Amino acid sequence: MRVYLDNNATTAVDSQVFREMKPFFVEKFGNPNSLHAFASETHKPLKNAMEKLYAGINARREDSVVVTSCATESNNWVLKSIYFEYILTGRKNHIIVSEVEHPSIIATAKFIESQGCRVTYLPINSEGLIEAQDVRDNITNKTALVSVMMANNETGAIFPVEEIGEICREHNVLFHTDAVQAIGKIPVNVQGFNVDYLTFSAHKFHGPKGVGGLYMKKGRELLPLFHGGAQMGGLRSGTLNVAGIVGMGKAMEQAVDALDFEMSDVRELRDELEDELLKIPDTFVVTPREKRTPNTILISFRGIEGEAMLWDLNRAGIGASTGSACASEDLESNPVMEAIGADEDLAHTAIRFSLSRYNTKEEIDYTIEVVKKAVDRLRGISSSYAYKPKTQN
Amino acid sequence: MRVYLDNNATTAVDSQVFREMKPFFVEKFGNPNSLHAFASETHKPLKNAMEKLYAGINARREDSVVVTSCATESNNWVLKSIYFEYILTGRKNHIIVSEVEHPSIIATAKFIESQGCRVTYLPINSEGLIEAQDVRDNITNKTALVSVMMANNETGAIFPVEEIGEICREHNVLFHTDAVQAIGKIPVNVQGFNVDYLTFSAHKFHGPKGVGGLYMKKGRELLPLFHGGAQMGGLRSGTLNVAGIVGMGKAMEQAVDALDFEMSDVRELRDELEDELLKIPDTFVVTPREKRTPNTILISFRGIEGEAMLWDLNRAGIGASTGSACASEDLESNPVMEAIGADEDLAHTAIRFSLSRYNTKEEIDYTIEVVKKAVDRLRGISSSYAYKPKTQN
Repeated sequence: MRVYLDNNATTAVDSQVFREMKPFFVEKFGNPNSLHAFASETHKPLKNAMEKLYAGINARREDSVVVTSCATESNNWVLKSIYFEYILTGRKNHIIVSEVEHPSIIATAKFIESQGCRVTYLPINSEGLIEAQDVRDNITNKTALVSVMMANNETGAIFPVEEIGEICREHNVLFHTDAVQAIGKIPVNVQGFNVDYLTFSAHKFHGPKGVGGLYMKKGRELLPLFHGGAQMGGLRSGTLNVAGIVGMGKAMEQAVDALDFEMSDVRELRDELEDELLKIPDTFVVTPREKRTPNTILISFRGIEGEAMLWDLNRAGIGASTGSACASEDLESNPVMEAIGADEDLAHTAIRFSLSRYNTKEEIDYTIEVVKKAVDRLRGISSSYAYKPKTQN
Repeated sequence: MRVYLDNNATTAVDSQVFREMKPFFVEKFGNPNSLHAFASETHKPLKNAMEKLYAGINARREDSVVVTSCATESNNWVLKSIYFEYILTGRKNHIIVSEVEHPSIIATAKFIESQGCRVTYLPINSEGLIEAQDVRDNITNKTALVSVMMANNETGAIFPVEEIGEICREHNVLFHTDAVQAIGKIPVNVQGFNVDYLTFSAHKFHGPKGVGGLYMKKGRELLPLFHGGAQMGGLRSGTLNVAGIVGMGKAMEQAVDALDFEMSDVRELRDELEDELLKIPDTFVVTPREKRTPNTILISFRGIEGEAMLWDLNRAGIGASTGSACASEDLESNPVMEAIGADEDLAHTAIRFSLSRYNTKEEIDYTIEVVKKAVDRLRGISSSYAYKPKTQN
């Protein structure tokens, strides 16, 4: 059996999404900016797709939803534009991010820090959560931006973005949220709280790779990261990726339609997996279930190297993760586990299972069986587990 | 009949290219950075594709060929990285570009100019060409970068990049060339001349939209434009667009394979079209044929608004252009025609026909017939043509 449980890393393109994209490669290939029928036959499909993106996050017509090439582009765009407009000009000198943001925020924050911006990295608490009070405590009249993700990629922890947005509004500070792990998992409504910028990525919700988006509230338009031919209302230049945009629009529509299913059926499967795995002695989950996206478990098996567990799972046809795919080539300890102050031994034992609406009960039952066997096998050969049993509650 | 003669704006994805991309949407969807079989099944196809990109431009193994989302990204990356590394730090204060670069260079140059960089915009001569001597005359010991395109998108004019590269080497100045309009039309060999950075874009050579590249010579690695998960050796973060990369690799291979055909058969068709159109009185082509890419004609029909001609062509099923698609929504006069100092009347009359290896003799004969009829009709109703005949040789 092949079981894909790494949906926070990427997802399969839905076959209906692909069907809608397909005509825009070989047949309807026109550049939308040209002035002839080869171009104009792309206009209605593009308009439909853009409307689905607006509807999916409940953006107002006067806001901007701009298509980018990925969430990494969107996140770099926000921070670097803030750098040029506020930091380099001396109007402000500070931004606030959480210490468990995606690498595209952390690495960009470190870059603008190297260029003279002060950066506060907010800690997570023992439940893997950001506390809104920490934003309040760190905000100053020189703070240009707060960037805190909506849901964490590693744990699924849902961060208090409504409260943080309100604090930003009170202090007249711009607020960005990376909603990459939220779309299709929890409701995302840009009119439901105070948010200026919101990032999303098609391939995390069964759309294609190579296309993402950035919402900007009206009046909060950023300096372009891509200057050029003035596509996307001058905000993001570059020939429109017609197939990608059409695919992302359809995938967004489906993600919103499937939200109830995700929050009931997918959650139920996730809970079953989690309940069974937590019956294994010396297992450990950081964030309480009700404070997480419905599809994610980050679980530690004391005494078992995460990579060793992945290897056993992979041999059985199961794809999971030790954490963000964007950092997983490094074989380092899980950054969230480090951030909560887990001992080094435990930090290397975290495995992330992230489900999608395509997983079945049969797949989950099979996974439970494989994991239990793997734990037995690996603890049997683990020197660290042998002499450090049950030190963690 | 439907005839597509706007291949400098974008091209149809070749059906074989699409066939190779297709498995990487719904089936082989893994994130290459993950640690399981869903990821590793993408590794060999990605490696093959990257090898085709290296081979296509004759890059050495130790150089970097980095996949981006489009040429606009690649061009922004070069100029903005130079800004951070040389201009902002005060090490240099100047760059040189041609005045007929693609908007993604011109607009980015204007942006970094607004941030304190001195920019020289090299003029074109009456043949629409850049003169290498002008680079020599403008280069100083404070020049950080020269960026001159390999072939112009409007006229097809081939610029003297070998000579300019040599001047840059002599003066120890970095040299970038935008080769978007060169790949598949003329030989592109990064070892054949002195070049540090070279931009290309898949959708200009029958690959998909939303994927492009940037060559960097060994030792000339830029600061990232996208910071994050350190994909592409840390140079360009963001989840790899597997289908896009596979498609671009195949398209590059085909472009190189088809180069002889482009330079013989496509050129022959282009020449036939041009010969016949130049028989119409008061027509005007800027750049001599032998100094152009084999697929491009920019031709002016005195007395006829370019957009009016496009409209007649479009009604007959023919897609052409008044110039760059990235600027064509504006209905402004052609920037190359303006740059050579054409009178305003003539500047609005330029039509660009750009062929591909998929055009047929039948299509070209049909186009000649349609254009001749359109000229008769439009000159018949043109007030400007009535009282300003034959003022241009």
